[in-house]
Amino acid sequence: MKEQKEAIMKSWVSGTQNSDFTIYNLPFGIFKNKRLGPRAGIAIGDKIVDLSALHDHGFFPDIKLPERIFLEGSLNRFIRLGKPTTKKVRERVQQLLSEENPDLKDHQVRGKVMITRKDVEMLMPVEVGDYTDFYSSKEHATNVGSMFRDPDNALLPNWKHLPVGYHGRASSIIPSGQPIYRPKGQFKDPEKKEPDFGPTRKLDFELEMAFITGKDTKMGDSISTEDAEDYIFGFVLFNDWSARDIQAWEYVPLGPFLGKSFASSISPWIVTLEALEPFRAPSPIQEVEVLPYLKCQKDHGFDINLEVFLQPEKGNENLICKSNYKYMYWNIAQQLAHQTINGCNIKVGDMYASGTISGPTKENYGSMLELTWKGSQPLQLEGGKERKFIEDGDTVKMKGYGEKGGIRVGFGEVTTKVLPAKGN
Amino acid sequence: MKEQKEAIMKSWVSGTQNSDFTIYNLPFGIFKNKRLGPRAGIAIGDKIVDLSALHDHGFFPDIKLPERIFLEGSLNRFIRLGKPTTKKVRERVQQLLSEENPDLKDHQVRGKVMITRKDVEMLMPVEVGDYTDFYSSKEHATNVGSMFRDPDNALLPNWKHLPVGYHGRASSIIPSGQPIYRPKGQFKDPEKKEPDFGPTRKLDFELEMAFITGKDTKMGDSISTEDAEDYIFGFVLFNDWSARDIQAWEYVPLGPFLGKSFASSISPWIVTLEALEPFRAPSPIQEVEVLPYLKCQKDHGFDINLEVFLQPEKGNENLICKSNYKYMYWNIAQQLAHQTINGCNIKVGDMYASGTISGPTKENYGSMLELTWKGSQPLQLEGGKERKFIEDGDTVKMKGYGEKGGIRVGFGEVTTKVLPAKGN
Repeated sequence: MKEQKEAIMKSWVSGTQNSDFTIYNLPFGIFKNKRLGPRAGIAIGDKIVDLSALHDHGFFPDIKLPERIFLEGSLNRFIRLGKPTTKKVRERVQQLLSEENPDLKDHQVRGKVMITRKDVEMLMPVEVGDYTDFYSSKEHATNVGSMFRDPDNALLPNWKHLPVGYHGRASSIIPSGQPIYRPKGQFKDPEKKEPDFGPTRKLDFELEMAFITGKDTKMGDSISTEDAEDYIFGFVLFNDWSARDIQAWEYVPLGPFLGKSFASSISPWIVTLEALEPFRAPSPIQEVEVLPYLKCQKDHGFDINLEVFLQPEKGNENLICKSNYKYMYWNIAQQLAHQTINGCNIKVGDMYASGTISGPTKENYGSMLELTWKGSQPLQLEGGKERKFIEDGDTVKMKGYGEKGGIRVGFGEVTTKVLPAKGN
Repeated sequence: MKEQKEAIMKSWVSGTQNSDFTIYNLPFGIFKNKRLGPRAGIAIGDKIVDLSALHDHGFFPDIKLPERIFLEGSLNRFIRLGKPTTKKVRERVQQLLSEENPDLKDHQVRGKVMITRKDVEMLMPVEVGDYTDFYSSKEHATNVGSMFRDPDNALLPNWKHLPVGYHGRASSIIPSGQPIYRPKGQFKDPEKKEPDFGPTRKLDFELEMAFITGKDTKMGDSISTEDAEDYIFGFVLFNDWSARDIQAWEYVPLGPFLGKSFASSISPWIVTLEALEPFRAPSPIQEVEVLPYLKCQKDHGFDINLEVFLQPEKGNENLICKSNYKYMYWNIAQQLAHQTINGCNIKVGDMYASGTISGPTKENYGSMLELTWKGSQPLQLEGGKERKFIEDGDTVKMKGYGEKGGIRVGFGEVTTKVLPAKGN
């Protein structure tokens, strides 16, 4: 698809032009509703194309697809068919949804295939095998290093030589809409001798994006930066919930653990790498020459506008952060090349999150920790409210979209309400 | 089963008395051979009981078992049936294998049910969802802290207040017998300004045990130390392969990543918690009073003798470490209570490794790092060889067993050969 050079495509589905889910996007997800069990779909405007219904009615005649492939309850097996197949499915749906194409528009099964999006429940799109969280925004790492260590040496010596990352908890990755409970744990006041215990006092979000791998490797093999994108199926928005006080007490020397593992929330529609092609952008210039396995021949950054909204239980939505995925110092090809340089095998459905995406100015900061500078400068919200960290009843929403030359491709949202700690 | 108070049980299977796999043990695993596809079995002496064949021939008449439950290729779905069921299956097999019981011994299908163990390939017993590695041996943490930080303050302030742990990589956990490739990566000589790149120069093993969970929890829920064992199905030996130079350069501030994720090896037979009951033992006295959620009402330690052998490519096996699981400062109930205190959900098939199990004397040290004190005191091997770390062609074998009052329950072994880095 050479979207940029051709006239703007339109769909016969109404109201898609300014939607996140234009005919240029066509992300994959898993949904269910009162009538239908879990199944794969493609989003278009305020509708979902039920891929299983399309398949049943013979709309994929030239694509080799196993029976019930869209009824698996996750996309893993579909993605494993490989890009030649998944691309063909998306392109076929694009044809069928095009303004001039009558095949589905005028077909009697149209009503069965096109589902109203607001009536469904979105589920996890993939079963996540392993989940890695990188730390690839220089601004974020600098902010954190300044606050917790030394403003004059905010970045640690390894930071510009490799994309620092750590293993996260896969079981607690949940889709948008599912509330989370405030985590309990240990934290220690520096003034006190012993740790305290209770619900976290410093609950935070982290604005991230994550890519999902679409191909396995064998142990011992590495992926080059040149080949990396062949292994990437698509992207979601990622909210890496964090409990700053728990994290601060536990993380030396083995890294974040319970300060993170209680929940991570994602947007439920996987936007394919193909759909993001128009938004490809250069990454920041790397100030230190990297080792050969981290060198890249082309741009692997993407110009994706990101926003975070905070809504108190009784109050309006406040836009509290505007950032962009293009600020990432380390790109996706470098992240995947680094992840596998030691021979670590990857699997279909793994998730690789970017780390908090902060930018150069204060409005770009992707966490409460940075926005309020450790709570020292509370955010002023509508209605005279203020916030140092996230409170019970608050809802955090993240949105993201690319827009260029009349083409819009968005991620929808990841929206999560925070409930009080269980058993308190 | 009240093994301790009764006369010693014997099996009609020959040569089981001094085996790791006595009639008191009966661990579960997944095997295949030239004739049979992947299936569940129970080990006894040098045989395996093919559970699927037993099931097919009606040997579990009073136990509610789904069809093909033993042909799933992993034990996850079987374990998920719950302890009342998995215990009944093990007890029924124990009856059938007892000296005095003719039901299987004299049955015409005996030849089909009893498989020769040396002819099979052992596979991963479970699909591992998440894998946590704890750091629960005080001796190990003290040794590492002394070497890398400060001998006078070897343990960090949090260490005695919580079982420190981190998330590990699940995809690269492999069964005994599968060789590993030496990992490549970045490491930095403190004398140099820039990092170097190549195959690790400091490949190490870590002697650990891991427990496997047998029951899910919901997000937001925590498991008490009192209930923790209800969630534990069984144990394996665990070799947490480590590349010390890669780890040293990467691990600040987010913890170990590529220095660990290239491989972890396990013994393929899951020894059930029930089988370890005779070896229950007190843990070391905790010097600092722990928070209420970490307090225990009973012993959760186990007296399991552990051994590590190192065999060069052309040379004999050398016993290089003798340790014991009972040295663990933090026990399994505390580990699971801590893992879930923040509401992190656990799943059937998760693996929770102990961290390196070192003891008070030098022969108890569970890694080359400690045994050679960072390479400064090379190990002397048979035939005039010496080792600072693990070399290409070396085979590392770990064994473990409990023995008490004539009852022996062993883990078999986890044996792994190290191959040169791929592509070099």
